[in-house]
Amino acid sequence: MNNLASYIDHTLLASNATEEQIDKLCAEAVKHSFCSVCVNSGYVAYAYDKVKDSAVKVCSVVGFPLGSMDIAAKAYEAKLAITNGATEIDMVVNVGWLKSGRWDLVELDIEALREICEGVVLKVIFETALLEDSDIEKLCEICTKFKVDFVKTSTGFSTRGASLEDVILMKSSIGNGVSIKASGGIRDRAKAIEMIDAGATRLGTSSGVAIVAGLESATEGY
Amino acid sequence: MNNLASYIDHTLLASNATEEQIDKLCAEAVKHSFCSVCVNSGYVAYAYDKVKDSAVKVCSVVGFPLGSMDIAAKAYEAKLAITNGATEIDMVVNVGWLKSGRWDLVELDIEALREICEGVVLKVIFETALLEDSDIEKLCEICTKFKVDFVKTSTGFSTRGASLEDVILMKSSIGNGVSIKASGGIRDRAKAIEMIDAGATRLGTSSGVAIVAGLESATEGY
Repeated sequence: MNNLASYIDHTLLASNATEEQIDKLCAEAVKHSFCSVCVNSGYVAYAYDKVKDSAVKVCSVVGFPLGSMDIAAKAYEAKLAITNGATEIDMVVNVGWLKSGRWDLVELDIEALREICEGVVLKVIFETALLEDSDIEKLCEICTKFKVDFVKTSTGFSTRGASLEDVILMKSSIGNGVSIKASGGIRDRAKAIEMIDAGATRLGTSSGVAIVAGLESATEGY
Repeated sequence: MNNLASYIDHTLLASNATEEQIDKLCAEAVKHSFCSVCVNSGYVAYAYDKVKDSAVKVCSVVGFPLGSMDIAAKAYEAKLAITNGATEIDMVVNVGWLKSGRWDLVELDIEALREICEGVVLKVIFETALLEDSDIEKLCEICTKFKVDFVKTSTGFSTRGASLEDVILMKSSIGNGVSIKASGGIRDRAKAIEMIDAGATRLGTSSGVAIVAGLESATEGY
């Protein structure tokens, strides 16, 4: 696979990530022509300044990593991120409402973000580690209904990251126009290619440099 | 200690917490006269409705648990929580900025929340697991300067919760008017009393019922 770099959202979401580490993330993304750098919203303006003269985009996570934030607060965080230069927004589903059967609120949350993200790529993070297959299927339906751009497996902060089964189930459950981002625990080229073969067209990983270098495993953890 | 219940913020912050679990949390808080229920901002209005006829307050976490959110987004999340009934706000410090030496931004973040939380109790969560003693001392100075109500040890989502050393260091570093909330890993009465003896006047725990019952350990984890 020659264009593997273009699949990668080069990701650094640790709460103690420094400006120096964000500098490195951005420089690597530009050097390797990754799709984007994926950061917390407090670093969006900073990262945008570092990559704005390249083709690398800024992706901001929102309501991250719990997804348990007030709907309007999540929407406002996305709005600010877009104002500060983000052209991709990765929001986290409210799993608590989902587990309460409050699909009405789950929908409102996604709908609010879709409205804010007009002309901006919207990804909805499911946190599959916490979900049943039927939850994943229903979320895929909702994401298709609201014309979400990507369904995304994981935050990287739960009990596990993306599984091949997640991606296969998502692939069979999404409608036209919705793509798949696999994220969490993708640390080597073999796993990256496995996810792509299963239907993912975007990968969230902190091991992008190792993956494009073809190393079997990255030296850095997720 | 007879009034142990009044020290407790009865806490449920798991991303998959259901409405039914929040119902139970609120009922227990009312029954045992805990100080507050502490929830994610998406549950503030819901919890307020359950406790509004009692003396139990609603405490909302903000920018939780990473603290890496845009300053204005954090402030807006707090504003919404207050509108929805919260009278206590527990915000998380931006540890990434702190580790970058960007104390100017760390201060702006706390200042913005102090302005929004007029007449509302503001607690600043340090996440001591990620900090050096000198970081804790400096944060205590800043929190004293901005008249924060409480410095708080931990989110419960990092590598460890509150330690006795954290509380002792905070006690020696805060100025007049600032109190201490110990949180994370406080699961039994002995630990609770140890924290209070060291200077904490508020405890964040999901084991409040077991603590006031005097059980040696709670059956539920943090």
